[in-house]
Amino acid sequence: MLKLFQYNWQVRDDWFKWCESVSEEELLKERAGGVGSILYTLFHIIDVEYSWILELKGEPCPEEPPFESYASLAKVKEFSRMCHQEIEPFVISWTSEMEHQILSETDSSGKTICFKYGEIMRHVIAHEIHHIGQLSVWSRELGRSPVTANLIRRGLFDE
Amino acid sequence: MLKLFQYNWQVRDDWFKWCESVSEEELLKERAGGVGSILYTLFHIIDVEYSWILELKGEPCPEEPPFESYASLAKVKEFSRMCHQEIEPFVISWTSEMEHQILSETDSSGKTICFKYGEIMRHVIAHEIHHIGQLSVWSRELGRSPVTANLIRRGLFDE
Repeated sequence: MLKLFQYNWQVRDDWFKWCESVSEEELLKERAGGVGSILYTLFHIIDVEYSWILELKGEPCPEEPPFESYASLAKVKEFSRMCHQEIEPFVISWTSEMEHQILSETDSSGKTICFKYGEIMRHVIAHEIHHIGQLSVWSRELGRSPVTANLIRRGLFDE
Repeated sequence: MLKLFQYNWQVRDDWFKWCESVSEEELLKERAGGVGSILYTLFHIIDVEYSWILELKGEPCPEEPPFESYASLAKVKEFSRMCHQEIEPFVISWTSEMEHQILSETDSSGKTICFKYGEIMRHVIAHEIHHIGQLSVWSRELGRSPVTANLIRRGLFDE
């Protein structure tokens, strides 16, 4: 599980670097698909990972902060750093015994829904990769090369 | 590992259904980003999964077939079915002991490169999710709702 999180964190940092050479106007511009803009996508990825993992940790999950307060590259990077610090230890200490632990949630209609911890962890992984795929299309539409999505050759499996 | 493959296979089938309501012209139209068109993306995902897993199985890997021979929804679906049949047993029988097995490859410059089996498996997973993210943007550009990328609530973790 950890390797796929580490992949996402590397790719996210690569996109932060990519963002440095793009104007803030383009980063905030509304686009078709996903959650709408490049910066909001990065913000959303961080927030979703953070919220689910806080829930798995059994900690109270704050409301999603308004994107308006984070609508700059520097602020989104800082948001990522802050959230990462809080959730990384949980991801690092993940063991296969935690797979079948149950997270109970109450949905908007008052119904209780149960998720396996392993289901949530994989959901978070897939969520980030999916949204990064969207950034890659927008990047080409901007006439720029996207960050590579390759998982191999990132040194993730070096001893 | 299996759950993320099963997620990809479900999502892929959902996209095949989505494709049924879109004209072949739109499915084949060249778009910005990724490998270029909706159908070619699906073809490419299947081919990459198939080729890597054949390599892990130690079987000779055929050349990528020319997309021109598969450029219709029916043919890509058939290609998926055929490849799936050959690779599913390997994915199902995956165990954590296989993680560190080594796949040696010779790159175009004649250099030997080594990959862990676990690295390749995760690469294949991330590869499909990433390209599906691209389809979701193109779908919105076509004015259509994309297939949901959610991994939760797909029944993947029901007993």
